[in-house]
Amino acid sequence: MSTSSLICDLARQFYDLGWVTGTGGGICIREGDRVIMAPSAVQKERMSPEQMFTLSIDGTIIDRPSDPALRPSECSSLFLAAIRLRNAGAVIHSHSIHATIATLLFEREFVISDLEMIKGIEGMSYHDRLVVPIIDNTAQECDLAESLEAAIEAYPDTHAVLVRRHGVYVWGRDWVQAKTQAECYDYLFRAAAEMRRLGVTDASLSSRSTDSYVRR
Amino acid sequence: MSTSSLICDLARQFYDLGWVTGTGGGICIREGDRVIMAPSAVQKERMSPEQMFTLSIDGTIIDRPSDPALRPSECSSLFLAAIRLRNAGAVIHSHSIHATIATLLFEREFVISDLEMIKGIEGMSYHDRLVVPIIDNTAQECDLAESLEAAIEAYPDTHAVLVRRHGVYVWGRDWVQAKTQAECYDYLFRAAAEMRRLGVTDASLSSRSTDSYVRR
Amino acid sequence: MSTSSLICDLARQFYDLGWVTGTGGGICIREGDRVIMAPSAVQKERMSPEQMFTLSIDGTIIDRPSDPALRPSECSSLFLAAIRLRNAGAVIHSHSIHATIATLLFEREFVISDLEMIKGIEGMSYHDRLVVPIIDNTAQECDLAESLEAAIEAYPDTHAVLVRRHGVYVWGRDWVQAKTQAECYDYLFRAAAEMRRLGVTDASLSSRSTDSYVRR
Amino acid sequence: MSTSSLICDLARQFYDLGWVTGTGGGICIREGDRVIMAPSAVQKERMSPEQMFTLSIDGTIIDRPSDPALRPSECSSLFLAAIRLRNAGAVIHSHSIHATIATLLFEREFVISDLEMIKGIEGMSYHDRLVVPIIDNTAQECDLAESLEAAIEAYPDTHAVLVRRHGVYVWGRDWVQAKTQAECYDYLFRAAAEMRRLGVTDASLSSRSTDSYVRR
Repeated sequence: MSTSSLICDLARQFYDLGWVTGTGGGICIREGDRVIMAPSAVQKERMSPEQMFTLSIDGTIIDRPSDPALRPSECSSLFLAAIRLRNAGAVIHSHSIHATIATLLFEREFVISDLEMIKGIEGMSYHDRLVVPIIDNTAQECDLAESLEAAIEAYPDTHAVLVRRHGVYVWGRDWVQAKTQAECYDYLFRAAAEMRRLGVTDASLSSRSTDSYVRR
Repeated sequence: MSTSSLICDLARQFYDLGWVTGTGGGICIREGDRVIMAPSAVQKERMSPEQMFTLSIDGTIIDRPSDPALRPSECSSLFLAAIRLRNAGAVIHSHSIHATIATLLFEREFVISDLEMIKGIEGMSYHDRLVVPIIDNTAQECDLAESLEAAIEAYPDTHAVLVRRHGVYVWGRDWVQAKTQAECYDYLFRAAAEMRRLGVTDASLSSRSTDSYVRR
Repeated sequence: MSTSSLICDLARQFYDLGWVTGTGGGICIREGDRVIMAPSAVQKERMSPEQMFTLSIDGTIIDRPSDPALRPSECSSLFLAAIRLRNAGAVIHSHSIHATIATLLFEREFVISDLEMIKGIEGMSYHDRLVVPIIDNTAQECDLAESLEAAIEAYPDTHAVLVRRHGVYVWGRDWVQAKTQAECYDYLFRAAAEMRRLGVTDASLSSRSTDSYVRR
Repeated sequence: MSTSSLICDLARQFYDLGWVTGTGGGICIREGDRVIMAPSAVQKERMSPEQMFTLSIDGTIIDRPSDPALRPSECSSLFLAAIRLRNAGAVIHSHSIHATIATLLFEREFVISDLEMIKGIEGMSYHDRLVVPIIDNTAQECDLAESLEAAIEAYPDTHAVLVRRHGVYVWGRDWVQAKTQAECYDYLFRAAAEMRRLGVTDASLSSRSTDSYVRR
């Protein structure tokens, strides 16, 4: 499958997950020194491969779709920031309601620990404290680039940055890792809200207890 | 794809989103001075193109399906009101539970601000206060036309009208914009209920804070 | 499409709606004086037409699948009760979690009014008070038949009977009406729980207010 | 359909149910004295039959995919424990958020009774008290094997073991029973959280009341 076809296929899947409704969100995939990217403001579950843009890593348009109405994704500069600063092979931007709600439950950092899905994030183990920086949203998506870059540099271990009242950017070394991590983060964002609704705190029922399970 | 086929395709998608269960809800699309519309009281995820009606903008039936049991949508007059008063190219009527619940959380207007998805509504930016008028429901759907028209005129910037304990009407210049906006509104209705459940108010964790994100 | 194929197709759809997980729930459709019914304890989203049973309305097996391991649905006597007492053309049994939860929110009757989806139930208009009797569950499904019959007779206008901590039986004159009504009931069960969670009572924000919407 | 194809097919279905997101979770199926198992850390909804491993019941790799990058599932020892100790024909490991949340609502045992879906678990009837042991999670999945085995032996009637803040292992005599039981458990985990959110206790509205439904 070509990278352009793969982007269309993944976008349909992300639509079903509620990540790219209302034409928002998206995914880009790097091929060597080029980046394949969907256009802005199109219905993400109905894209076709010939609608994709090809950009260089510095943002120059190398190849564009023949339809003159199409413009490159408004997330271009954000996608490229993660690619340049983290050598990412793919970046996913999700408007998942779980990500958006998570930014309303925490101040500057989303923090969670002791959940198995944390292990899906590279470099993290079960008992680690997973931290995702939250940056404030801006009126124009391109204006987010500066604070996203600052967050990426301030949190050298993170693979994601939440945007307050907006969504999340997640990246990985390739599209497989980016997607896996995006699914794990989304699960963790949702779990945090469920725990809040049920009044279950991080401290309760910790699995760090020293009395291991024994036969009765 | 013909407009009739497109309506069937979109209706299947709306069914999966929970917008048109129980034969409720629907979509109409304008073609020049004609409007293609689904019949009333049919299962929206199982329609075929030959079941569609064609109406003039004043509501006269120009073409009808051969099956004599089919009647035009009960929403006809409401669909046509948005088309006439707003020059809409498509109108979506959704019974989404998120829309219905939203009408129970607000009195006369659904109001939300500072959520990225607001930008999906034409003319709105992130910090704008999005207002959707809520009209009271009536026993007969056709009796809604008058108050829907009044709301459309009273709120010249709105692209949607909520109907208390019923659902929402959303329109756009074409089916793409109508669908995009319907998805954004639905997300915002759901977000408002999630915020209410979690006790998160609009004022808390506002992204309007002046201290932009800085490196630590 | 044959009735047997239709049952398989609808069962797949009901699986996606969460109504028939864990082999529970089902649907039967009448053809004249015969009833086509799925077998018991099979995965409802993976059935094939040759697995169907054909019963007479008094419950005699007229035709059975060649696989000797298959037994008729445990709901047979309940399905047949609705067919005999209400002249139903189809009966749907759902284990939807919304139905089960609804039986925990009400004592002997599920009651709701002033929701548009009520109009999807035959004979009901928007302001009507929709009542669904709730019968207690029994250890054996066949033992429910007596109380289901009693509820059907005690509530001559109902098209559904809820079973406490179990699910719901819904019927209609044909499979289309049964499915439409099952979808409307499910929406209403879910809405009742959402309203309870959000602290919204039936009385608040009633659409019966006499001050109709006026231009500002 | 070959067992390898069936595993791929079921994994796609489990992905849609939210059980195997982020490459987590999985299923293995026994064929006589061999066990077919998916590889570790692959996207479960996109697997192909030639990626499967074949293991003996003692864990020796009999056959492996040609792709050298693939490793056997990290759940191998846990899958094999259920197969050896319970003569299981299939084992499902789910990261369903309902399972994970259930482990935060109960201390050492998940307990529920008086729900119809309990009857989907072998040997259980409606009024029985269903108990699922909860073991603490470990940093490495393979380190769970010992406490999983202890739980299986301590609870000789259970068909599932919950893992705190992680998910659940469910088995059955064949893949059909394992899947049926996994769906029933998942429903019950979700129902327990819904009941908690709505403030409905087990004791309220019990169906054990002796006053059976009578005609009014």
